[in-house]
Amino acid sequence: MTKQVGTHLVVDFWYGKIIDSEKTIKEILIEAAEKANNKLLDLGIHKFEPQGITGFALLAESHISIHTWPDKYYIAIDIFTCGNHSTPQETLKFLKKRLNPKKIQVQEIKRGHLENYGKKNHNANQ
Amino acid sequence: MTKQVGTHLVVDFWYGKIIDSEKTIKEILIEAAEKANNKLLDLGIHKFEPQGITGFALLAESHISIHTWPDKYYIAIDIFTCGNHSTPQETLKFLKKRLNPKKIQVQEIKRGHLENYGKKNHNANQ
Repeated sequence: MTKQVGTHLVVDFWYGKIIDSEKTIKEILIEAAEKANNKLLDLGIHKFEPQGITGFALLAESHISIHTWPDKYYIAIDIFTCGNHSTPQETLKFLKKRLNPKKIQVQEIKRGHLENYGKKNHNANQ
Repeated sequence: MTKQVGTHLVVDFWYGKIIDSEKTIKEILIEAAEKANNKLLDLGIHKFEPQGITGFALLAESHISIHTWPDKYYIAIDIFTCGNHSTPQETLKFLKKRLNPKKIQVQEIKRGHLENYGKKNHNANQ
């Protein structure tokens, strides 16, 4: 049995491909969800002027988001999936290939440690 | 000058209020964005059967998401904001009050460290 509810990959890409089309980021998010073996529920995408594009895929298994700062050559990505069927590392692999960053930082966070489940009497703010 | 692009609060709530209405989660997300002093661009909300509700707020300053697992008494929250005007801790304060969890885990991640900006020749996969 998995010991947490989900896996969250907090990803920073530097000097990757600059995305300037809403259609492209939509396609990327749809494929990112497919690679994670996740069900897409909703998409939200917004293009900024003069530059920058941001998008969010709401999944049955949590979410994938991509926010871009072309002026800083920076892309912030979150891949948060739950369930044993999910393959978030496949999404990361796909995004690396698709966006081709020169530098990558990845932090993997286990979300919802089930050791907390049943410990109702713990103090808040711990 | 800030040394990163944004601040990301990765938040796990345990034994908080169970939200079972799309209207309520919508109201919570709208107020969460206001508390962060952020501009709401889009909202996506989905209710699962028999239980669970999930939602995201796409912001001009990144995103706020709330995913709930009532069967595990667990709520996963992400508050990712950028810019000096953003007040993500105010959003966290609001959500603590609104959802009243008995146990809270918060991890603050600085996203997009600007020390990486200009280091184009670093290897990927670092």
